[in-house]
Amino acid sequence: VKMKEVRVVIVGFGVIGRGVLQTLREKQGFIRGKHGVNIKVSAICEIDGSVISNEGLDLDKVLDKPLNKNKFWTDKKTRDVIINTQSDIVVELTPGNIKTGEPGLSHILTAISAKKHVATSNKAPFAVAYKRIMDSARKNKVSVRFEATVGGAIPIMNLMDECLSVNKVESAYGILNGTTNYVLSQMSDEGVELDSAVKEAQQLGYAEPDPSYDIDGVDSAAKVVILANALLGMDVSYEDMKVTGIREITPEAIDLAKKHGFTVKLVGDVLRLEVSPRLVSVDHPLNVSGSLNALMLNTDVAGDVTIVGRGAGSRETSSSIIADIVTISKEL
Amino acid sequence: VKMKEVRVVIVGFGVIGRGVLQTLREKQGFIRGKHGVNIKVSAICEIDGSVISNEGLDLDKVLDKPLNKNKFWTDKKTRDVIINTQSDIVVELTPGNIKTGEPGLSHILTAISAKKHVATSNKAPFAVAYKRIMDSARKNKVSVRFEATVGGAIPIMNLMDECLSVNKVESAYGILNGTTNYVLSQMSDEGVELDSAVKEAQQLGYAEPDPSYDIDGVDSAAKVVILANALLGMDVSYEDMKVTGIREITPEAIDLAKKHGFTVKLVGDVLRLEVSPRLVSVDHPLNVSGSLNALMLNTDVAGDVTIVGRGAGSRETSSSIIADIVTISKEL
Repeated sequence: VKMKEVRVVIVGFGVIGRGVLQTLREKQGFIRGKHGVNIKVSAICEIDGSVISNEGLDLDKVLDKPLNKNKFWTDKKTRDVIINTQSDIVVELTPGNIKTGEPGLSHILTAISAKKHVATSNKAPFAVAYKRIMDSARKNKVSVRFEATVGGAIPIMNLMDECLSVNKVESAYGILNGTTNYVLSQMSDEGVELDSAVKEAQQLGYAEPDPSYDIDGVDSAAKVVILANALLGMDVSYEDMKVTGIREITPEAIDLAKKHGFTVKLVGDVLRLEVSPRLVSVDHPLNVSGSLNALMLNTDVAGDVTIVGRGAGSRETSSSIIADIVTISKEL
Repeated sequence: VKMKEVRVVIVGFGVIGRGVLQTLREKQGFIRGKHGVNIKVSAICEIDGSVISNEGLDLDKVLDKPLNKNKFWTDKKTRDVIINTQSDIVVELTPGNIKTGEPGLSHILTAISAKKHVATSNKAPFAVAYKRIMDSARKNKVSVRFEATVGGAIPIMNLMDECLSVNKVESAYGILNGTTNYVLSQMSDEGVELDSAVKEAQQLGYAEPDPSYDIDGVDSAAKVVILANALLGMDVSYEDMKVTGIREITPEAIDLAKKHGFTVKLVGDVLRLEVSPRLVSVDHPLNVSGSLNALMLNTDVAGDVTIVGRGAGSRETSSSIIADIVTISKEL
């Protein structure tokens, strides 16, 4: 196999962006050996500027300090870098606004129009404008891969495309938010109230200072939208979702469920476009504890397949992002 | 995408062989549309003869009756058909002897020497001669894919190759035999003795008249051998395994485990080349009930990923076999 050189532009130098670059640095030799792909980073963009190198950035130097302290730092805007830097793939890793999809939506559409392939962990653009993105990708004949947008390290879209490739998904159910799963697990194991479990999750860094995005089911619902489009071929966006979070769940309710062999989980029902607390039998594959995520796929040939793993974490999530980069690279 | 025509020879017209042909017939249009591959069956072989058609067999007619009642039936031997029928892929679906690997081992090596790619569900050849098969495949520049040999419908090898493609597997633990898992689940749920749970499994068709292959851990151990070679890059065969089955497990032992929050499972430990009954915490992802199979992969980037599904069943298993056929076809 002859080595293929692939250039990527990284957009977003936060926790996820740094995680991807750290894993890329660590795994560069492995990826060359196993997949015959040599990944070079031609640029990294943040809101206040970029670093660019057509020969490929030295990742040791870049990771050493904040982006704007890198000596090759310029104030070039992301849009300009996406369009004008020599690259094959734009890797979009910014945090997204679930209402507008921005700034990721513009980055992704700009990249597609510039005939760049896209790999991303940013769920907001897909929760808002899935069809618009995919139609544009088809028109411009580029690949858009978004494995990391749902379930972090857990392969879902690639699992269906590459492994369960003769199957049709008939329905799917998921535990898609690690924070709420941690909170519910703590309430069940320790018998504590929601508020104190949330506080603990915040102390451990699982929950944001404002936990409503997780606790009210917004994050789970955005992921269900993506799965409904990608797995079930629907054409839906966030506003089509029925969403109930876990604020009303009490330790007493969980206790009662437990007595009958059930546990309470925040379940995303992909076919019904619904996120809500549901009873899950304790020996059901979706009964996963702590901050784990899980997805059960009901398929027409393989039957039910459930996959469980880490739904967050910058290192874990980089597994999905870089797998998408490798898959696109092999198709080039 | 232009349509690619691929010819396969099916070796083995038992439950699995019929299942593959039924699924192929049902899914032919889907596979053409989604993957651009038109799969034609040029021959089907059984121990007492074959049916052959260079234009592709009519699956309706073939599935209608036993093989030797098909009007195009000939007494050509399998070896002859593998070598001399026009085909790209040999699909080996015979039952195998775990000591010798035969007759599948000869079929597979014959196919490889004849420069045919191989897709198979037959674990015996790989438990006996993994390295020999793979070395020969490399020398003859053909693909050998064996997803269905472990975990039935559950993607494992393809999951690592295609989805977790930047990861190294550090260790893996599996519930790899549905019969023993059903027996242990029944003992736990109903408090019955092993013998009566085995009898029930036999009545339901989960267990063979002689259940020792399952109950004594032989089947699980053969699968661990394959995973050790394929996932961990070892060079081992069945004789390297340490195997303890579930004959000594009592309902009392299971009850005691339950009181402490554990369940008893027959676990395959891939790194340690061991199959033995182990305590598994009730909220561990490997605690799957009934006849389900599960595999936990400890990976270096994605962390722990667990996949759960049907380890047997001719329809479910055909999902893995046909996915392998499609993957090979795309590489042609």
